[in-house]
Amino acid sequence: MAEFDLVVRNGTVVTAADVSRCDIGIKDGRIVALAERLDASGPVLDAAGKLVMPGGIDSHVHIAQDGDDGTVMADDFRSGTLSAAFGGNTTVIPFALQPKGRSLRAAVQAYHARAEGQCLTDYSFHLIISDPTEQVLGQELPALVQDGYTSFKVFMTYDDLKLNDRELLEVFDMARREKALVMVHAEGYDAIKFLTERLERAGRTDPYYHAESRPIPVEREATHRAISFAEIVDVPIMIVHVSSADAIEQIRWAQSRGLKVYAETCTQYLTLTAEDLKGLNMEGAKYVCSPPPRDRESQEACWTGLQSGLFSVFSSDHCPFRFDSPAGKKKQGERTAFKWVPNGIPGVEVRLPILFSEGVGKGRISLQEFVALTATNHARMYGLAPRKGSIAIGADADIVLWDPDRTVTITQDLMHHGADYTPYEGMEVTGWPETVLLRGKVIIDKGVQTGKAGDGRFLHRSISPFAAPRGRRPTQYD
Amino acid sequence: MAEFDLVVRNGTVVTAADVSRCDIGIKDGRIVALAERLDASGPVLDAAGKLVMPGGIDSHVHIAQDGDDGTVMADDFRSGTLSAAFGGNTTVIPFALQPKGRSLRAAVQAYHARAEGQCLTDYSFHLIISDPTEQVLGQELPALVQDGYTSFKVFMTYDDLKLNDRELLEVFDMARREKALVMVHAEGYDAIKFLTERLERAGRTDPYYHAESRPIPVEREATHRAISFAEIVDVPIMIVHVSSADAIEQIRWAQSRGLKVYAETCTQYLTLTAEDLKGLNMEGAKYVCSPPPRDRESQEACWTGLQSGLFSVFSSDHCPFRFDSPAGKKKQGERTAFKWVPNGIPGVEVRLPILFSEGVGKGRISLQEFVALTATNHARMYGLAPRKGSIAIGADADIVLWDPDRTVTITQDLMHHGADYTPYEGMEVTGWPETVLLRGKVIIDKGVQTGKAGDGRFLHRSISPFAAPRGRRPTQYD
Amino acid sequence: MAEFDLVVRNGTVVTAADVSRCDIGIKDGRIVALAERLDASGPVLDAAGKLVMPGGIDSHVHIAQDGDDGTVMADDFRSGTLSAAFGGNTTVIPFALQPKGRSLRAAVQAYHARAEGQCLTDYSFHLIISDPTEQVLGQELPALVQDGYTSFKVFMTYDDLKLNDRELLEVFDMARREKALVMVHAEGYDAIKFLTERLERAGRTDPYYHAESRPIPVEREATHRAISFAEIVDVPIMIVHVSSADAIEQIRWAQSRGLKVYAETCTQYLTLTAEDLKGLNMEGAKYVCSPPPRDRESQEACWTGLQSGLFSVFSSDHCPFRFDSPAGKKKQGERTAFKWVPNGIPGVEVRLPILFSEGVGKGRISLQEFVALTATNHARMYGLAPRKGSIAIGADADIVLWDPDRTVTITQDLMHHGADYTPYEGMEVTGWPETVLLRGKVIIDKGVQTGKAGDGRFLHRSISPFAAPRGRRPTQYD
Amino acid sequence: MAEFDLVVRNGTVVTAADVSRCDIGIKDGRIVALAERLDASGPVLDAAGKLVMPGGIDSHVHIAQDGDDGTVMADDFRSGTLSAAFGGNTTVIPFALQPKGRSLRAAVQAYHARAEGQCLTDYSFHLIISDPTEQVLGQELPALVQDGYTSFKVFMTYDDLKLNDRELLEVFDMARREKALVMVHAEGYDAIKFLTERLERAGRTDPYYHAESRPIPVEREATHRAISFAEIVDVPIMIVHVSSADAIEQIRWAQSRGLKVYAETCTQYLTLTAEDLKGLNMEGAKYVCSPPPRDRESQEACWTGLQSGLFSVFSSDHCPFRFDSPAGKKKQGERTAFKWVPNGIPGVEVRLPILFSEGVGKGRISLQEFVALTATNHARMYGLAPRKGSIAIGADADIVLWDPDRTVTITQDLMHHGADYTPYEGMEVTGWPETVLLRGKVIIDKGVQTGKAGDGRFLHRSISPFAAPRGRRPTQYD
Repeated sequence: MAEFDLVVRNGTVVTAADVSRCDIGIKDGRIVALAERLDASGPVLDAAGKLVMPGGIDSHVHIAQDGDDGTVMADDFRSGTLSAAFGGNTTVIPFALQPKGRSLRAAVQAYHARAEGQCLTDYSFHLIISDPTEQVLGQELPALVQDGYTSFKVFMTYDDLKLNDRELLEVFDMARREKALVMVHAEGYDAIKFLTERLERAGRTDPYYHAESRPIPVEREATHRAISFAEIVDVPIMIVHVSSADAIEQIRWAQSRGLKVYAETCTQYLTLTAEDLKGLNMEGAKYVCSPPPRDRESQEACWTGLQSGLFSVFSSDHCPFRFDSPAGKKKQGERTAFKWVPNGIPGVEVRLPILFSEGVGKGRISLQEFVALTATNHARMYGLAPRKGSIAIGADADIVLWDPDRTVTITQDLMHHGADYTPYEGMEVTGWPETVLLRGKVIIDKGVQTGKAGDGRFLHRSISPFAAPRGRRPTQYD
Repeated sequence: MAEFDLVVRNGTVVTAADVSRCDIGIKDGRIVALAERLDASGPVLDAAGKLVMPGGIDSHVHIAQDGDDGTVMADDFRSGTLSAAFGGNTTVIPFALQPKGRSLRAAVQAYHARAEGQCLTDYSFHLIISDPTEQVLGQELPALVQDGYTSFKVFMTYDDLKLNDRELLEVFDMARREKALVMVHAEGYDAIKFLTERLERAGRTDPYYHAESRPIPVEREATHRAISFAEIVDVPIMIVHVSSADAIEQIRWAQSRGLKVYAETCTQYLTLTAEDLKGLNMEGAKYVCSPPPRDRESQEACWTGLQSGLFSVFSSDHCPFRFDSPAGKKKQGERTAFKWVPNGIPGVEVRLPILFSEGVGKGRISLQEFVALTATNHARMYGLAPRKGSIAIGADADIVLWDPDRTVTITQDLMHHGADYTPYEGMEVTGWPETVLLRGKVIIDKGVQTGKAGDGRFLHRSISPFAAPRGRRPTQYD
Repeated sequence: MAEFDLVVRNGTVVTAADVSRCDIGIKDGRIVALAERLDASGPVLDAAGKLVMPGGIDSHVHIAQDGDDGTVMADDFRSGTLSAAFGGNTTVIPFALQPKGRSLRAAVQAYHARAEGQCLTDYSFHLIISDPTEQVLGQELPALVQDGYTSFKVFMTYDDLKLNDRELLEVFDMARREKALVMVHAEGYDAIKFLTERLERAGRTDPYYHAESRPIPVEREATHRAISFAEIVDVPIMIVHVSSADAIEQIRWAQSRGLKVYAETCTQYLTLTAEDLKGLNMEGAKYVCSPPPRDRESQEACWTGLQSGLFSVFSSDHCPFRFDSPAGKKKQGERTAFKWVPNGIPGVEVRLPILFSEGVGKGRISLQEFVALTATNHARMYGLAPRKGSIAIGADADIVLWDPDRTVTITQDLMHHGADYTPYEGMEVTGWPETVLLRGKVIIDKGVQTGKAGDGRFLHRSISPFAAPRGRRPTQYD
Repeated sequence: MAEFDLVVRNGTVVTAADVSRCDIGIKDGRIVALAERLDASGPVLDAAGKLVMPGGIDSHVHIAQDGDDGTVMADDFRSGTLSAAFGGNTTVIPFALQPKGRSLRAAVQAYHARAEGQCLTDYSFHLIISDPTEQVLGQELPALVQDGYTSFKVFMTYDDLKLNDRELLEVFDMARREKALVMVHAEGYDAIKFLTERLERAGRTDPYYHAESRPIPVEREATHRAISFAEIVDVPIMIVHVSSADAIEQIRWAQSRGLKVYAETCTQYLTLTAEDLKGLNMEGAKYVCSPPPRDRESQEACWTGLQSGLFSVFSSDHCPFRFDSPAGKKKQGERTAFKWVPNGIPGVEVRLPILFSEGVGKGRISLQEFVALTATNHARMYGLAPRKGSIAIGADADIVLWDPDRTVTITQDLMHHGADYTPYEGMEVTGWPETVLLRGKVIIDKGVQTGKAGDGRFLHRSISPFAAPRGRRPTQYD
């Protein structure tokens, strides 16, 4: 009888620390051996010429997050995780959103119901807290943290999601007590609303004005505010989807003071600009997401942030809407104004190829940094390590075989998401995920789906090691 | 017949630009001649050995600003301006406060009624906008600006005064249209409330916890927020009573970007620290003001800010409450908690002596800077120049004869304010105002009151030259 | 008999502090009266419709500073001060340069010999220390400071002028003891030489490569070095002709720390860019000066520095060479390489009009700031106040009558300098000096020369009040 | 026959990426297998309860670097590497120093002669360039890089080592061409000399004045200068032994601009302060090293730098001199002045325990960061990866078994270095290296030496991947 269920042979294995030539022995879904040469009396997957990396973890995706207002997301868990898998990912962490006035626990159950049996990749949920009542903060959340939902997201904008300053402070304080990690969408509601109304009054309703309605100072101000509240409460926070040089400056300032402020940037902020929102015939609506893409200077600042360790994680903020459908981006843009264009763009499938091509391929980051930014750091940040995010003994055999030399032109035809377009249409990348293993099972085999809905499992997560206030004096009210 | 009503003879005249030995000829309340030697066939005031400077303008004082809640300020216009005059001032700009839900115009009239016939110095009013309704923003304020009330103050904290972010933006926008100058009290309401509740819950109710309830990051965050909103709206703002190195860092950052962010600091932030709030037997309550005094590092940063031009104006934020009275600081502190201690300290009478002694006397600032920071810049900033704030032909003959060598120990006995204590008790200063002229009339003569209530007149103010956005591109919604 | 030798009537008098309508009474070359209306039984100068300002002081000009290598400056004291006067200046402070290996006292005498009887404006000398021997530092300089040469200039670059780091420290230390003010040319010699050699080796010898040979980091590094040495020695310094956003960032950082680092910028850094060096047919050589003109971003940073008080003084760094002459810029550029193009440009005549037009006219600075930056601050910084730099009782009657509405296109034809071109050819400005008084004597009358060589006198200068280390703890070795 | 030469069993294996429980299979000195359970028919090393980490790499140690002036270092290669091994290290990178006027190749040969057959750990050499003649830069160095000496060190201070600015630029330029990595000792020679002479003249010769003679601005200035030169040349650099908050601020600024500026800090800058130099009876001399220890604020800044990724490597700067010997620190200090006290302190043996205890033990850094900072990053930075610095398939079996719970009080008795004291005397640490394997051979076995001199081999190093200018535009002279 073979010692292993599967051996990945002859690949170049990359972790956040190392690049080494070795075989990987898999048993019962886990990596049980790494060696120069493993007995391969059983099944073997030839990885010669390939990079063998931990499957991507995309800790910032929105799936099946349909709005009360009838907004329908283009991806359910079936298509969303299929697209993720084709993009080289084996775990996604979408959001379970609490509608205002409702129970968070109920929201979690609802999302479980949507995901159950539908996923091709493993998954967990961050909790979106839109209504931090005493009941939610005092009872539901502590219990949910115990149950493995160890990270929350709060919004400083959006009519139906935004928390006011007092609520932010209360959520931060609860997170501190429970050692949960809070993710912050840092854009200021009031400034956006103020600008939006003026733009509308001036007849400036084209998609491009989406960018004008939330300019860089809006993001910077909210970033500074979130950092200050975290400092006051003495709790670590994660600023997600950072888009601008100004916000990066704030985060660097905070980190230089020893504050535990973590940060994430996303594919769009490296590759798109506000100019893309100017496309004619509502093409600009394809790029409506928040924060909006900025300019070359901010792109450069994002790269520098990735290189210098300012950003811990690189995500897609996959948030897919159809362009051409009754309530899609085009129709909404035509009928009304930029502010009604469904807000978000798809990207879970191209996050890895774009970062690999633009980052590793162009000499901006190393292979190890690529793995850290796309998998390992996500696992560690969100309490999935050591089970996920690396190629190490005992870890789940979540593996992607990557062809570093394959050149692909991204087009909608290649995508497996539910959206009817990709904002990266026509972009050429070198490096592509070829074969994907989830817990030892090949779910994508040289570009062909071999796994099935339901292969993916829900992941209970541990307390994040990054959520603990380290070495800081207690605040006065402790 | 004498050419002049009065000649000030033989003094050393100091302006924001110059120090020169000359006589001053006064006629009809204005300065009509400066010369090496003036004909003095009429009355003469001997200024030999004295510095002859423009009378101080204190653009940040609270007088007779009684609260709806029964709080009674220790100074009415009679005692407040008497104290100001003894402190070398000839103009004060207190506030006309709009109670929420009421008309701003009515508030202005009410304050006029309080001041009319009571003042020993000239005066004008800033308007405190606590309820920026459409009516207030769209009609009352534009009319009031026309009437010479060209500056407003907004609060980011205090239950009965704070504006929310949207209101701040609307006020800024209105100020931009009307070219009014907005003064901002930059401390964040929600963070203070959050901390206060926790401190109270922990039984930390002593006056000292006033400082803990509004720590430096609270001021810094609000400062950054105000700056960002001003940037978004493209309007100049004045950050008042800046107390901390962190807030100064934000202001410097803004100024270095070319944003028109002006700033003021006050006597207490150069001389007091949070330690003073620790006095036993409720003595600490004597120092309760907002922002609270900080530490030596922040004091040093305030001095550097004065030296480098970061601060345009130096004020007292005179806000006097009695210590020992039924609703005074002591009783309130004993009965309840720090948050009910009336918030503010007296200081209009010692602003000039303290800055002169600590600043000019200790070689930190020049005589010209002293005059600029205490008089000239106030006049220019708030639309009183060229009539006020300098010793120049055509200007009102508002003059202080200053004895640079007189050493005085500040004690309550010397004060003329309505408060029953001074927070600067026991402080020794060198340099003291001896004689004060208001529009040519001697109102203080070698330390003796010679003017009377009603000598002071109301001042209509021009649009501030600092309120105009200069050289900035119009925002998108113009 | 008339009370005054001359009355300037009906003008709008501007000082660094005030703008007021008044007459000016002059007697014995000094301002003895300012009044709404002066007796004018004697001579009267009608200033109606004119701004009446202190004559410009240009504290950074090079005149008759011929090199040992045969370089001939285009201006001797006769033409240089004539040009200055036509530009609205009444005082210039050129340099007395010590050639290496020679006595500084002898250099001073040589420059006196060149200037004596030649000047139309008053003048003084900064001392350029190129050879700080023990004799120079220990004996000559202390004596020269006593004699009224209270400021020195040191160079961190140029073969024949540069001091090494140890010499800089020694000069700073001597300046500290003698309370002299050190001006620093902050560009790094070795980096420039390194880059120049490589550019030459690569055949890049056109004038444009002058800019490439001394890029912004070269200036920034030297600026940081000078600041650090000044901090180590604990002495104030003045960084002259600051050209770049990076250098400004260093100076702001120093000032924010309370270091006494003063700064100057010049006309060319507000108006020219490195692109100007690309002119064909050696036209680019007309713009060869050091530091070189930069880019729009640095221009903007210079304006912000002027507005925020970072810069105390605004000068021309007038350093005129002929373009078309045997050893002129063109011939040298053609014959050899950029590094042999005589380094410097003329500008003393247009400094005031350009700053007025671009600054006051375009709403970037106020009239008072204009006067401070062009006259008053120079006088105070370099020990000429209160005699020079303001319109105040007792001051020399150095006055310019300025037509704020006259529009002039700058061309070489209008210039009175010895250069055969102006780098500002074709630039249109609004605002022009019309009439100039030197100590009460009209030397330029509505654009016509009425003064004569020899009208200008040498000025002994006092210790600069800015040269004293204020409020700083003594260093260990005191 | 056993599959492995040795199996390390049951340990908790830590890499820069992962913490996992697994066995390690070693064959022919290399790691050939990692597995949950390995066949252990051969020799087994029980690691239960231990952390199994890559052997430390100390890339900054001085061994047998005797001076021309008769200074004798307390460690030769035998004692130096013995001490290193007992401290958990398996590789050291000392320096081969070129005396001025001599051949660099000859220096390399001399150091080889000293090391050959003496080392207990593996070793390589950085080259110290003290005399960058054309011959050295043009011929010796390119050849030496080819031979595997891929990093250089340059000094900005020390009489016999310092390069002037031009030489720095030339070395940087050569490094750029050869893709060598330049390490910079950033302290400014002239400022130190200037201050030293003044201190001596003032009779301030005690060891404490060593710190006063090279204050923080001296380090900051040199750091800025080195960064600027690297920017001008467009070459990465490594700033070694960074000690102060100010220098860290410069490095952060550089990294935030995308410059490839790497940095190292050392044990002493986390744990000692200038106060330690004040010890009586010349005890202070024990702490004389350069840069000198600073203050708590700088210690805190160093920790923040380690946490935020600003520092890539953490070293000892082991530079041992005897305290009590004829030319030792005490005698030299007594006889002369601080400047003649041999400059440097021992520390190779305690680097890992101190960082582990203060860093991992006190929650400041993670286990993975510990491994990265002490081993992995050194290997990658200096061209030893993937052979050294990690526990990965194919890597040398350089392994330390670490007891995380053992508490040790550091005393000289425990040390194996040649110095007669340790500056960390009395410091208590938790966590200690127990057993050390060098290429699979146990050289330290539970605190007992089992390896022998000569076990260590010389390591040819590859070009550092960090030495390549990435994504930067070529400079003009390319």
